Order: sequence, then structure tokens, then C-alpha cells
Amino acid sequence: MPAPHVTVTRRLLFNAGHRVHNPALSDEENVRLFGKCNNPNGHGHNYTLDVSVRGAIDDRTGYVHDLGALKQLVEEVAVSKMDHRNLNLDVAFMHGIIPTSENIIVAIWGLLAPAIHPAALVRLVLWETSNNYVEYTGD
Amino acid sequence: MPAPHVTVTRRLLFNAGHRVHNPALSDEENVRLFGKCNNPNGHGHNYTLDVSVRGAIDDRTGYVHDLGALKQLVEEVAVSKMDHRNLNLDVAFMHGIIPTSENIIVAIWGLLAPAIHPAALVRLVLWETSNNYVEYTGD
Amino acid sequence: MPAPHVTVTRRLLFNAGHRVHNPALSDEENVRLFGKCNNPNGHGHNYTLDVSVRGAIDDRTGYVHDLGALKQLVEEVAVSKMDHRNLNLDVAFMHGIIPTSENIIVAIWGLLAPAIHPAALVRLVLWETSNNYVEYTGD
Amino acid sequence: MPAPHVTVTRRLLFNAGHRVHNPALSDEENVRLFGKCNNPNGHGHNYTLDVSVRGAIDDRTGYVHDLGALKQLVEEVAVSKMDHRNLNLDVAFMHGIIPTSENIIVAIWGLLAPAIHPAALVRLVLWETSNNYVEYTGD
Amino acid sequence: MPAPHVTVTRRLLFNAGHRVHNPALSDEENVRLFGKCNNPNGHGHNYTLDVSVRGAIDDRTGYVHDLGALKQLVEEVAVSKMDHRNLNLDVAFMHGIIPTSENIIVAIWGLLAPAIHPAALVRLVLWETSNNYVEYTGD
Amino acid sequence: MPAPHVTVTRRLLFNAGHRVHNPALSDEENVRLFGKCNNPNGHGHNYTLDVSVRGAIDDRTGYVHDLGALKQLVEEVAVSKMDHRNLNLDVAFMHGIIPTSENIIVAIWGLLAPAIHPAALVRLVLWETSNNYVEYTGD
Repeated sequence: MPAPHVTVTRRLLFNAGHRVHNPALSDEENVRLFGKCNNPNGHGHNYTLDVSVRGAIDDRTGYVHDLGALKQLVEEVAVSKMDHRNLNLDVAFMHGIIPTSENIIVAIWGLLAPAIHPAALVRLVLWETSNNYVEYTGD
Repeated sequence: MPAPHVTVTRRLLFNAGHRVHNPALSDEENVRLFGKCNNPNGHGHNYTLDVSVRGAIDDRTGYVHDLGALKQLVEEVAVSKMDHRNLNLDVAFMHGIIPTSENIIVAIWGLLAPAIHPAALVRLVLWETSNNYVEYTGD
Repeated sequence: MPAPHVTVTRRLLFNAGHRVHNPALSDEENVRLFGKCNNPNGHGHNYTLDVSVRGAIDDRTGYVHDLGALKQLVEEVAVSKMDHRNLNLDVAFMHGIIPTSENIIVAIWGLLAPAIHPAALVRLVLWETSNNYVEYTGD
Repeated sequence: MPAPHVTVTRRLLFNAGHRVHNPALSDEENVRLFGKCNNPNGHGHNYTLDVSVRGAIDDRTGYVHDLGALKQLVEEVAVSKMDHRNLNLDVAFMHGIIPTSENIIVAIWGLLAPAIHPAALVRLVLWETSNNYVEYTGD
Repeated sequence: MPAPHVTVTRRLLFNAGHRVHNPALSDEENVRLFGKCNNPNGHGHNYTLDVSVRGAIDDRTGYVHDLGALKQLVEEVAVSKMDHRNLNLDVAFMHGIIPTSENIIVAIWGLLAPAIHPAALVRLVLWETSNNYVEYTGD
Repeated sequence: MPAPHVTVTRRLLFNAGHRVHNPALSDEENVRLFGKCNNPNGHGHNYTLDVSVRGAIDDRTGYVHDLGALKQLVEEVAVSKMDHRNLNLDVAFMHGIIPTSENIIVAIWGLLAPAIHPAALVRLVLWETSNNYVEYTGD
């Protein structure tokens, strides 16, 4: 029997500020589209990020991927660059991108997917509040 | 590169009463099948409903679907008709249907799927208690 | 040094139906006071009950009160009489009492306080939804 | 027997941005005291506010305080002024005050305490993240 | 129209001790691979197990699978053998297997999959802490 | 007006193994008193510890106590000595003490109370599972 394939997930938290705003549109259009999320001085969230990696169980360790190492990688590559920052102004990989949860999660995927192996990144989930979240599987 | 496809989810809460009862069966058979859930005067739950919609990210907004609009739609079409109601007696779209979580979620799908576009309804999850939930993807 | 006094808490869950209604008042007045909570066919909740008991730590066990025994007592005396029941119609100790969380918690206190010793019941907390709860300390 | 006194709590959520900064101190001193919380462009949080009110149960309603009315009051007086805002720049009652959780909760108390009666505001709890919260009882 | 297929999930909790250790490797190699998880006297966790079963809704009951019966089955076959036990020393079905979450979930699958019918086991999720979980779908 | 006094709380998590056992009693008596918690090879938990400190708000910082510093202190003095350890065998400050939650929390108090100032330790809460917790206020 081939080794079973399991998906393992590490949850990380970060706090960030943002303003949902499209600079290519007028102020009126921004207010119409984004309402209170367009507040000029911004607001913020406690984000919860679930990083899921899938692969065969390694016989030697019983692990698909060492979760301590995964946490360290995600913090280094993505979370430390957003935590306690303003997503519009302080985060290089978000420059020129409207910082909605959809765009944030796709940007994080772009950073993480090439860095994880031999197990593969298969799903990201990002909670913005306790009432809404987005998920992305790379396609 | 085509626009990435992301799944976005909005969580809504409602409180409802129900009795798990099949009127086509005898009282004895109902008790045997449903136990305490068949209590004649009913009981109730704090339901949690997660509505998931998938589509391409809109360049102009950075959204797959405006979540404020999605919440309003789900409340209007489904949640407001169940909240603080008795699912056996007060909810037109549940008439003649045993109000198990399975049947509730399929009924909600029937209401929501035609109303959501251009993003598509792809998953509903309904928690009945903190220990059990059902999910439906339309097939 | 006297033995330290610690407060220990056991959480229990139950699901019940209710209608917030005062039969001494007119239907119009009931609707005005209770709104959607007055729905004639009722609704329901997943209640969470935290029972807190305080006393000295027993040298022999390291316990203030055996929590398995406390759980069994609370289920027997209170929770089993409400779980999967209608609080207006099925629960003897709520007869003639408007089944608000405030009145439920005072009634539970009346049942539990005399039954717990030598540690003393010091606090009850009852969550009706994830957004509201009541607490009672016996005075 | 006098009417039992019960404490009832309503939970509300809001999302806000802030920068922990004392303008009376040098930039170096601010960084030393507040670290990453002093980021010039700010960050933000999903705040959870628990408002607790204590009083006698009203015989007519079975309530200590109508929780729908309490929610509406807290939203009008406090939450709507902070939600989706920047606590340093957009909130009049925080002007000139370092927006730590401690200072926010004392400010909210000042707004709510005079507005709640005949039941009395007895406790506020404010969660800034899932790992830290502050509470204030008015003294 | 064929009967809709719904996935229903029952959550169960258990508390267990374990030591992440591969007896085929040297002590040094174990410490290098597993760090604090290799502590010779072990540590432990509150595990959360979500068992998901998929099938057609039964017209007579409105159920895909009776969740009370599912809970009883999972407790008998798997949870009662791990709860309040040491996974390295006390659990027959884990003998000779490194008790990582990955290996535990595959072992539970092996016990449950043949026992559930006509609905089919389709997913297991096992939380080890509030920050990490694994999922397995049988392949 | 004197500076308001606020209680601030930092939550920390740790995972530990334990066996509830009193070596002064017979094996039979231990089984009778502690049941499955007396399993010879132990079991374990994900503990959640809430450390609450009360004091005046410092004008300069807006803080009662720097929570980063509090976290570091609690980790150094208490949590790092229990995390991923066996409470019966590996933790010096628990030697000769039955590792119930009651005894653990009193022992942690003894370590922390002298180390925190000028704000004062006023409450510890320790969750052993999601269904039970203990609290201690030092008397």
C-alpha cells in the first residue's frame, strides 16, 4: 500500500490595518462600492490564516511536514510582513493591490507555494472577522 | 493569467424551534427513530449558517462578491423566514418536510442558488449545535 | 496556612424551545414587549450553563469538588429536565414563570444550591446565544 | 423575598484601526515603550465588547434590561462611533487619549454609565485579540 | 430527481497523552526531529475529532445517518480506546506507530471506514491544539 | 480624579501530561476516587491560562501593565516549565503535589504573585478542557 496522503494545517494570527480603496476610481465611486470599509483613515482586523499542506506521511517522522518548520516559514515569508502593519502602506507585496481578503490570500499563495516542498500547499483560508472568511486553492 | 478564483464565505446566525417528526409514521415509530428530538412540544437551536460563493476576483473591487450584499440577500431570502420561528409550523418552504438539518440545508440551497450570480453558490454549512453540522454542495 | 479556596466550574449544554410571553398581559402588549421572541409557536436555543462551586481544596484528592459528580448532579437535578424540551410547556419548575434567561437561571439556582455541599454554589452563568448571557450569584 | 438581582450581558463586535503612540514623548521613546504597536501607519483589531448590566428582574417582563434596547443604545452611544474607524484620528471621545484597551474601556464607561437605568452598568470587558482583554467596573 | 447527497459531521472530544518518538532512531536523532514533543515522560492534548459521513437523505427520517448512532459507534470503535489513555502505551491499534496526528487519523480511518454504511465515511479531521489539525479522506 | 483601575488579562496556552494520583493511598482507593483520570500511563490536556493583573492606568503609556512583558514573565516563571512536560514527573514546583487543576493554579499563583508589580496579580483562570476550568484569587 502506498503511504497515505494527509492534509496538515497550521493556524497563524496577525493584526493589521487596511482601507478598502481603489485609487483608479473617484472618491464617490469608492464610497459607493466599499461603504464604511473605505474610511480614509482606515480600520483593521485580527486576521486568522490557516495554511494547509498535503503529502505522504514520512515513515521516519510520522509527519507530512514539520509544523514548527511550517509556522516559521509562514511567519518569515508572509505573516511578519503584515503583522502590526498597514496593508495599504507598509507591505511591499500588496503595493498597488486593493487589500481585500481575496487579494491578500492570492498574494500570500504566491509567496508560499514555491517555498513549500516536497509536501504541497493545497489550501489557504483567511478569516477577516468571526463572520467572514475566504479560501484559495491556487487556481 | 486568468483572474484567480476564490471562495468567500459569510456566516449568519438564527434561532429556531423544531420537532423532528414524520407525520406519515406512527407515534411509536417516531419515538423509536427520533428519541428526545421527537418531543411533542419541540425544542430549538442556535443555528449557524455558512454561505460560500466562488468566482473570479473583480479587478475593480477586489471582491468575488460583496459580502454585505450577500448577507442582505441570505437574510431576505432565507434567514429572516426561519429566525425566531418554529420550523415545523411557521416556515412556508419547510411545509411537509421533516426539519432535520439535512432537509433544511437542501431547502436553503434551493432558495439561494438561483439568486446568486455571477459568482456561484458552491457550499452551505449548517451547524445545529457545537457538536454537529451538515454541508451541501448542490448534488 | 489554611487550605486555599478555589472556584471550579463545569460547563453543560442543553437545547430547548421557548416562547417569551406573559399570559397576564394582552397579545398586543406581549408583542410590544417581546417582539419576535413572542412568536406564538416559539423558537429555541442551544443553552450553555456554567456551574461554579467554591471551597477548600481537599488534601486527599486535590479537588474542591469532583467534577464528574457535579456534572451528574446538575444533569439529574436541572439539565435533563430542560434538554430537548419546551420550557413553557414541559418543565415543571418553570410553570407559571416567563422563560427568560434571568428567570431560568434563578430557578436553576433554587434547585442546585441546596444540593451542593460542602463546597458552595457561588455562580451560575447561562449563555442563550453566543452574544448574550446572564449570571446569578444567589442574591 | 425581594426580587433576585441578575447580571445580564450583551456582546458587540467592532473593527477599528489604531496606533499606540504618546505624542508627548519622542519617537525613540515611543518605539521603546510600544514596539510594533507604534507602527506609524497603524494596524487594527476585531474588538469584542461585553456590556454587563445588573438589576432586579422585572415581574412583568422577566427581564433585567431589554437586551435589544441595550444593544441599540451601546451601538448608538459608543460602537457606531468606533466601528470601521481609526481610533486615533476619527473618534471624538478618544481625542488626546492613547488608544490602548485600558483607555478605550474607561472612555466607553464614561459614555454608557449615565445612559443606562434603572439597571446599572456594572462591568465592561473588551477583547483586543483572542489572547488579551481588559475589564473595568467603574472605580 | 435523485435524493440529494449531504455530508453530516459529528464532533467528539478526547484527552490523551503521547510522546512523539521513533524507537528505530537514536535519542539524539529523536530530539533533533521532534524537539520538545519528544520529552521522555510525554505530554498530552485535548483532541477534537470530526467524523464526516456522506450519503443520500433517507425519506423516512430526513437523516443521512443517525448522529446519535454515529457518535456511539465512533466512541465504541475508536474514542473510548484513546480517551484518558497514553497513545504510546495503552492503545492497541497504535502499537508500533509513532503517535503523530497524521498516524492517529489514518489509524482511526481504518477502524471506522468498514463500520459505517450505507452512508460512507468521507473525511476525518483531528485537531491536536487550537492551532493545528490534520484531515484525511482515505487515499 | 484618581487614575481608573483596570484589570488586564493575558491568555497563554500549554500542553502537558498528567496522572491524577495520590501516592499516599492504595491503588484501589485511587481508582475509586479518580477513575479514568488515574490511568497509570497518564493522559494530557491543552491547558489555557488567563493571568489577570489589576492596577492604575499609567498616564505615560496608557497601560496597566505591558502585556508583552507579562507574557514573557509568565512563560519564564511558569509556562515554560510545564509546556510539553509531564506534570507528575518533570515539573519541580509540582513535586509531591497531586496535579489537579486546583493544585496547579495555586502553585502558579505562588510563582507569579511575588513577581508582578506595581500592578497586582488578582486572578488566575485555568481551563483543563473546553468544559471545565478553575479560578483562584489568592485567598
